[in-house]
Amino acid sequence: MEAELKNLLSDLHALEDSLRDPTHHSLIDKMRSRVERLSVMENSRVVQRVKIKDMSAEVVDSNPYSRLMALQRMGIVDNYERIREFSVAIVGIGGVGSVAAEMLTRCGIGRLLLYDYDKVELANMNRLFFRPEQAGMTKTDAAVQTLSDINPDVVLESYTLNITTVQGFETFMSSLNNKSFRPDKEGSGVDLVLSCVDNYEARMVVNQACNELSQTWMESGVSENAVSGHIQLLVPGETACFACAPPLVVASGVDERTLKREGVCAASLPTTMGVVAGLLVQNTLKYLLKFGNVTPYLGYNALKDFFPTMEMKPNPQCSNAACLEKQKEYALAKPARDAAARAKMEVEISLEPECLHEDNDWNISVVDDSDVQVSSTSSGALPEGLVFELPSADEFQKPSVSEETTNTVDDLEDLRRQLEALNAD
Amino acid sequence: MEAELKNLLSDLHALEDSLRDPTHHSLIDKMRSRVERLSVMENSRVVQRVKIKDMSAEVVDSNPYSRLMALQRMGIVDNYERIREFSVAIVGIGGVGSVAAEMLTRCGIGRLLLYDYDKVELANMNRLFFRPEQAGMTKTDAAVQTLSDINPDVVLESYTLNITTVQGFETFMSSLNNKSFRPDKEGSGVDLVLSCVDNYEARMVVNQACNELSQTWMESGVSENAVSGHIQLLVPGETACFACAPPLVVASGVDERTLKREGVCAASLPTTMGVVAGLLVQNTLKYLLKFGNVTPYLGYNALKDFFPTMEMKPNPQCSNAACLEKQKEYALAKPARDAAARAKMEVEISLEPECLHEDNDWNISVVDDSDVQVSSTSSGALPEGLVFELPSADEFQKPSVSEETTNTVDDLEDLRRQLEALNAD
Repeated sequence: MEAELKNLLSDLHALEDSLRDPTHHSLIDKMRSRVERLSVMENSRVVQRVKIKDMSAEVVDSNPYSRLMALQRMGIVDNYERIREFSVAIVGIGGVGSVAAEMLTRCGIGRLLLYDYDKVELANMNRLFFRPEQAGMTKTDAAVQTLSDINPDVVLESYTLNITTVQGFETFMSSLNNKSFRPDKEGSGVDLVLSCVDNYEARMVVNQACNELSQTWMESGVSENAVSGHIQLLVPGETACFACAPPLVVASGVDERTLKREGVCAASLPTTMGVVAGLLVQNTLKYLLKFGNVTPYLGYNALKDFFPTMEMKPNPQCSNAACLEKQKEYALAKPARDAAARAKMEVEISLEPECLHEDNDWNISVVDDSDVQVSSTSSGALPEGLVFELPSADEFQKPSVSEETTNTVDDLEDLRRQLEALNAD
Repeated sequence: MEAELKNLLSDLHALEDSLRDPTHHSLIDKMRSRVERLSVMENSRVVQRVKIKDMSAEVVDSNPYSRLMALQRMGIVDNYERIREFSVAIVGIGGVGSVAAEMLTRCGIGRLLLYDYDKVELANMNRLFFRPEQAGMTKTDAAVQTLSDINPDVVLESYTLNITTVQGFETFMSSLNNKSFRPDKEGSGVDLVLSCVDNYEARMVVNQACNELSQTWMESGVSENAVSGHIQLLVPGETACFACAPPLVVASGVDERTLKREGVCAASLPTTMGVVAGLLVQNTLKYLLKFGNVTPYLGYNALKDFFPTMEMKPNPQCSNAACLEKQKEYALAKPARDAAARAKMEVEISLEPECLHEDNDWNISVVDDSDVQVSSTSSGALPEGLVFELPSADEFQKPSVSEETTNTVDDLEDLRRQLEALNAD
């Protein structure tokens, strides 16, 4: 649009020059000022954020990373800037995937790979992210448009394809394997795959790809009645894969498309999808930046605000051959894992500071309390006025001794006197 | 922009007409086609969604409400379209409030009232909603721009003011009391107030306004280290108000602004804020559309994915006079509430179907199990091979009776025989 307006201005200039009759000049001036006004409007609209080379923690209004770098000062994350090294692939740019992509973009993730074959429709407007004027665009194009405006620092790759087709799967695999963004990275070319699809067939394809690549991924889903959802972490060989405990529709081999009736659509809410996307990306940040506990499975029941968690081990009878192979590899690597864990623990112990506080301004000294007697009811004594209803087990099992004998044994002097009295009889 | 382009076209037409020399016409044609191209580009950009008179459940791609109306078919909501009757006020259009506003807008809420005095900065770009090109605009103007593009059916009212000033508070109160949107509504002019502010002073002001108006509201907050948050429902007189159990900084009367150091900013994450906004609006939808359980308090600990809940009763020693007044009113209205609850229960019982199954194809009959003896260890009997270590309390407190006496008393015939033997001696 900017170029077209510039051309219009030079056309006006050329016209003015070629007109010998100056009576037309006032009209041309008027037109020029119109074009100039249009240019100003256009410029005020497309002011793009400039790219930023290094993330700064400086607290100024113009720094889009100040509130993220503050996570270091708050003691939550050791090195926030590492986020620029990571690549995350998002499969499915719908109600969950698009919001997940926006969150990661605003966090300044290094590179995002986006996969979808669908188009934006007005029927998608009840979820966050897409705008009505994007209706008719592919979801990938619309997402790239919005995300690159929000944060031009993120490297965006979009793939308008269906991963469940042969050609689509091949492109999916080769894009995950591409290491040009970080050639020294171990394993595949991405750090995490997020599955945000709405059908089991696509989930099984993501599962297959990740099992083959030994690629850690996270699965997400929202129920058809819009009021529950879940996220799940899948590490090939270490946790259950998606085929280890398949949903009934997958296990029974039914084509799920035959289950959907014409003219009936699933319900959805921006709230449930926003919460699931938030929990998914939060788990992603914890996994990538190593803080908090990465949750293996988290459910969300919106009607009751109930959030169940669980862990799933791999199934030794899993139907997926690649999963069985990764399970074997994981078992074989156990001694090496144990040795590494031991070594790490030893390093941590050797690094422990011997003296935490070198000076002692307040003359605080530690008191040895090993001799201190703790007097409490836990020793068996009851507060005044209370008695036990039952004897203790120890008392009950004591051999019963007559009261008289006990008293005599307790008092040796008395015993001697009784003996003398008997002798005197 | 559209008007300016139209004017430009008519200027070109006028110029062409006034030029007797046709050599210039080709240049004018070229300019005309440029302006036409600009118009096409402009139109493709500002295609606004048309307003929709009635929400339809029709499943077509062009229906922005199909996935929401599906909540009725799924049995979650009785009457989704009622959402158009409701007014929600959002105080604070930051990381939580802006996302809450977008969710309610996409859900097709009737009317939104937005309050904020701040401007959009690039430093806000690590949260959802605002775009870099909106930097410098007031948050209220930027929000109205984005929200009216997303859903022109929602009535938007924005107030660029600080509710903690005298003038701001007055406008806040009168805007909440304005009933022009639904003149027959009981109470204030809004159905719910959402507090999405980032300081205690503003929360106390929302609390004061809602106590005075008997206005139900929901409070939300995110911690300074960005990894926890909460939402809370407050019903004046019925639940604790914000002053009933005030945070230490409020209770101690310290000016919280003195606690913030220059050049130090709080951390924030789009994930935590998105989750809190999602939970807040989900609770709002449950409250307005009467489905699921409205949660009185829900916490979110992102590091552990822990979601605590609790309930808080009002404090009879609350420092807020309006709260004490509402507590009194709530107590006085107890008999009326109980009567209404009883009447409702009676209606429900009378509506209960007497016979659930009129036919009985399978001849299923109910067996009377009142005579069936339940044999279990709960009656005191132990499984074979086990004995009690301690006697039961009843046994222990029984007056001890010699075994002989017991046996004799039990057998009267034996007693008679012993008596005869004694007499025979």
